[in-house]
Amino acid sequence: MFSIIIDMKKIGLLGCGAIGTQIALAIDSGKIPAILTHVYDFDRSKSEALVSRLKKRPQIAENPHMLSSNPVDIVVEAASQDAVRNHALSILQNRRDLLIMSVGALLDESVLEILLDACREFKRTIYLPSGALAGLDAIRSVKEELESVLLVTTKNPKSLKGARFFEVSKIDTDSITTKTVLFEGSAKDAVNLFPANINVAALLSLAGLGSHNTKVRIVADPQTDKNTHQVIAQGKFGSISITVENVPDSTNPKTSRLATLSAVECLRAACSTDMRIGS
Amino acid sequence: MFSIIIDMKKIGLLGCGAIGTQIALAIDSGKIPAILTHVYDFDRSKSEALVSRLKKRPQIAENPHMLSSNPVDIVVEAASQDAVRNHALSILQNRRDLLIMSVGALLDESVLEILLDACREFKRTIYLPSGALAGLDAIRSVKEELESVLLVTTKNPKSLKGARFFEVSKIDTDSITTKTVLFEGSAKDAVNLFPANINVAALLSLAGLGSHNTKVRIVADPQTDKNTHQVIAQGKFGSISITVENVPDSTNPKTSRLATLSAVECLRAACSTDMRIGS
Repeated sequence: MFSIIIDMKKIGLLGCGAIGTQIALAIDSGKIPAILTHVYDFDRSKSEALVSRLKKRPQIAENPHMLSSNPVDIVVEAASQDAVRNHALSILQNRRDLLIMSVGALLDESVLEILLDACREFKRTIYLPSGALAGLDAIRSVKEELESVLLVTTKNPKSLKGARFFEVSKIDTDSITTKTVLFEGSAKDAVNLFPANINVAALLSLAGLGSHNTKVRIVADPQTDKNTHQVIAQGKFGSISITVENVPDSTNPKTSRLATLSAVECLRAACSTDMRIGS
Repeated sequence: MFSIIIDMKKIGLLGCGAIGTQIALAIDSGKIPAILTHVYDFDRSKSEALVSRLKKRPQIAENPHMLSSNPVDIVVEAASQDAVRNHALSILQNRRDLLIMSVGALLDESVLEILLDACREFKRTIYLPSGALAGLDAIRSVKEELESVLLVTTKNPKSLKGARFFEVSKIDTDSITTKTVLFEGSAKDAVNLFPANINVAALLSLAGLGSHNTKVRIVADPQTDKNTHQVIAQGKFGSISITVENVPDSTNPKTSRLATLSAVECLRAACSTDMRIGS
């Protein structure tokens, strides 16, 4: 038993918001076979609120660099794209693995290149959960034979409110009464206009054809209460069509339940060595 | 450069048929960052034929045990369910990781238990490629919230010929002239009647609800020339629907191109440490 515990990976958590809290609870309950040793949030009261909910209490780091100067194996970023831009490189340089939730930061090719180089130099791994999507296993597999990838995201207009798209277009979310295609273009352009969709578009781009060649269509549907992502990929291998109808996470209505569950599963798999199901 | 080569994982290949050959060629071309050091096939002429196609020539092992007594990191089983039953345990006991293509062998719960125990005891990993499926990343993620999983496999009756199903039923493949549901039941029963579908049904069962609770429907469609697998999964998280239309692999018409590609991708990911996309 003792040897099992000392073999367990040590986790540092960067960001103690809704998703960080779910990950911490999954470690605390034993669902993820790991030990949460340190947490950090730039708002210290969030760290304290999280720690008070845990049976096995981690230390609160004084600053984000402390997370990876401690004997941590994997740092989990559940904070923001800025956190990735500011801290990911030094985490890898400190020879910690890194699980990134704010995948959108990797659409900046200069950031991606630097982090991939650091992974190779320091023999570290960046883990990217599947987010609110399914099928990244197959998209990665057919990458070299892919001819086209289209992501169709359908949401209630209310869920799209606040997107930059509505500043540059004449369309008002309240005026949408029937199913309406708002945008069709590259993933690169889509994430600028609909930043809330950035993780899904970024993951699909990274797994497949890149953000210039991955097509995105955004549909507003006043009749739906779900966030639906459909991926249609074609090539010499045949075709793959994936539709995920996502229910919001009750603990965090801005996130799909699947995005929370896939983050937990990604860390569980990274901390486990018995069986890895899927490519 | 030298340090990169000595860091590369060493692969032993068990089975030099069509899929083993594709994996060996992917290593030889550098697509998989690894070194193929040893191969074995119970038909030595197949080993010799494979080795003659490679630039970097592996040794031919004299027997399957030799594969894992050599300084190999990962043994790739691309042989048969019998090979899994006979050799998987000793490979893990010899402290090698194992990639299993003949996943159907793991539907025998006694085999699965023994191998999982060995993984834990010897700190080894079994890798299972996604086969001709997509979305095992998401199925694993929602496992605890899954309420139902259905696999619908549609093939031309000619592709179903020879299945045990036709011995026990009165249906003759030649008499099927319209789209016909041949079977509906558990994955457990499906794989006995349609052994050619065993890998897909086994993977989905292992990732999700197990072979008793995973439902399978087999459809014969004289109008199709593709092997289509559809997965419909539902639960509190929402729903996931995945359809994969598979083209046969030109190098191995009995296998889908996606199954070959996902085996190569699975080994590539297992041999790489930079970025892991997907849960």
